[in-house]
Amino acid sequence: MERHLDQQLEHIRHTLLRMGGLVEQMIDKAIRALVERDEALIAEVIHQDEEVDQIEMDIDEACLATMARNQPAAVDLRFLVATLKMTNDLERIGDSAVNIVESARKLNEEPPLKPYIDIPRMSEMAQGMVRESLDAFCHRNTELAAKVCQEDDGIDSIYRQLFRELLTFMIEEPKTVSRALHLLLIARNLERIADHATNIAEEVIYYVEGRDVRHSEAKAFA
Amino acid sequence: MERHLDQQLEHIRHTLLRMGGLVEQMIDKAIRALVERDEALIAEVIHQDEEVDQIEMDIDEACLATMARNQPAAVDLRFLVATLKMTNDLERIGDSAVNIVESARKLNEEPPLKPYIDIPRMSEMAQGMVRESLDAFCHRNTELAAKVCQEDDGIDSIYRQLFRELLTFMIEEPKTVSRALHLLLIARNLERIADHATNIAEEVIYYVEGRDVRHSEAKAFA
Repeated sequence: MERHLDQQLEHIRHTLLRMGGLVEQMIDKAIRALVERDEALIAEVIHQDEEVDQIEMDIDEACLATMARNQPAAVDLRFLVATLKMTNDLERIGDSAVNIVESARKLNEEPPLKPYIDIPRMSEMAQGMVRESLDAFCHRNTELAAKVCQEDDGIDSIYRQLFRELLTFMIEEPKTVSRALHLLLIARNLERIADHATNIAEEVIYYVEGRDVRHSEAKAFA
Repeated sequence: MERHLDQQLEHIRHTLLRMGGLVEQMIDKAIRALVERDEALIAEVIHQDEEVDQIEMDIDEACLATMARNQPAAVDLRFLVATLKMTNDLERIGDSAVNIVESARKLNEEPPLKPYIDIPRMSEMAQGMVRESLDAFCHRNTELAAKVCQEDDGIDSIYRQLFRELLTFMIEEPKTVSRALHLLLIARNLERIADHATNIAEEVIYYVEGRDVRHSEAKAFA
C-alpha cells in the first residue's frame, strides 16, 4: 500500500514537471513569435495550450483518486493539496502565453515600434522564476522557493517603468497607440506569469514545511 | 465521527460564502469609488482585501485539517477539493477589485473621460455571475452553474467593444490616453472577475456531479 502511494505521488510529480516544462516552452515561443515575427510559433503556442489544459485535468483527477484511495497524511497530503493549486497556476501561465501570442499577431501586422529590449528581459526573468519554482518543487528546496518570491519585485519594477514609457509614446505619437497598447498587454501578462511563479514557490514552502507564507513577509526569512 | 465531519464541512461552506459576500461587496465598492469619485470606498476595498486574504488561508487550513482527520470520500472529498480551488478564485477576484480602485484613484485626479456606462454594466454582469456561482454552490444547483458559464461570453463581447472604442479615443485625442488606458485596465479586471466566476461555476459542477467540465463545451449541456 505504502509503496503504491509512493508510486502514485511520483507519477503526479513527474507529470507536474512535464506540465511545467511545457509552459516554460510556451513563454519562450510566445516571446520569440514577437521578436522574430514568426507566425509558426504562434500556432505552436496555441496548440501546446490544449495539451496543458488536458494535463491539468489529468493531474487533478490523479490527486483526487490518490486522496480517495490512499488517505495520505502529513507531507503527502500537503504535496497533493499544493499540486492541486500549482496545476491552476501553470494552466494560467499557459493562458498568459496565449494572450501574448494574440497580441504578437496584432503587432506583427505593423513595423516594430522600437527594438524589443525590456520585453525579452522581462520574459527571461519570468521564465527563470517559473524554472526555479519548479526546481524548488522537484528538490524540496525552500531556500530557492524563497528566492523566487523575492525576484517578483524586479519584474514589477520593469513593468512600471515600461508602463510609463509606453504611455509617453502613446501621448506623443498617436499612430503608435495600438502597438504600444499591445506591448503593454504583453508586459502585463509577463508580470502575471511572475506572480504565478511566486504562487508556485509559496506552495512549495507550504508543502515542504507546512507553513502558509501567502500574504506575508515570512517567506523572506525562509 | 460522521456528524463531526458534517459540522466541519458546514463550517467551511459557511466561511466560503462569507468570503464570497465580501468579494461581491469589494467589486461593488470599487466601481462606486470610480463612478461616485469616492476616496473612502477605495480605502475600504483595500482594507477588505486583507480580510479576504486571511479567510483564504483559514479555509485552506480547515480543508486540509478535515482531509487529514476525517479522510472523507466521494462528494465530501470533491467538495473540499473544489473549495481549495474556489478560495483561490475568490482571492483573485479580491485582487482585481484592488487593481480597479488603484486605477480609479488615478482616474479621479482628472475630469471623467465620458459618462461611465459600459463599465458599470460590465460590473453588474460580473457581480451577478459571482453571486450566481456562489448560489449554485450553496444550493448544489448545476443548472445555475451552467448558466454562469454561458454568461461569460456577454462580458467578453462588451470588453472587446469597449477596447475598440477606447483605442479610438486614444488615437484621436492624445490627452485622453492616460484615462482611456486606466478605463481599459478596469474593464480588463472586470472581464477577469467574470472568468473567475466561471471557474467557480465549473468547480460547482465538478463537486456536485463529479464531471470536470473545464476546457470543454460540456458545461453548456449540464
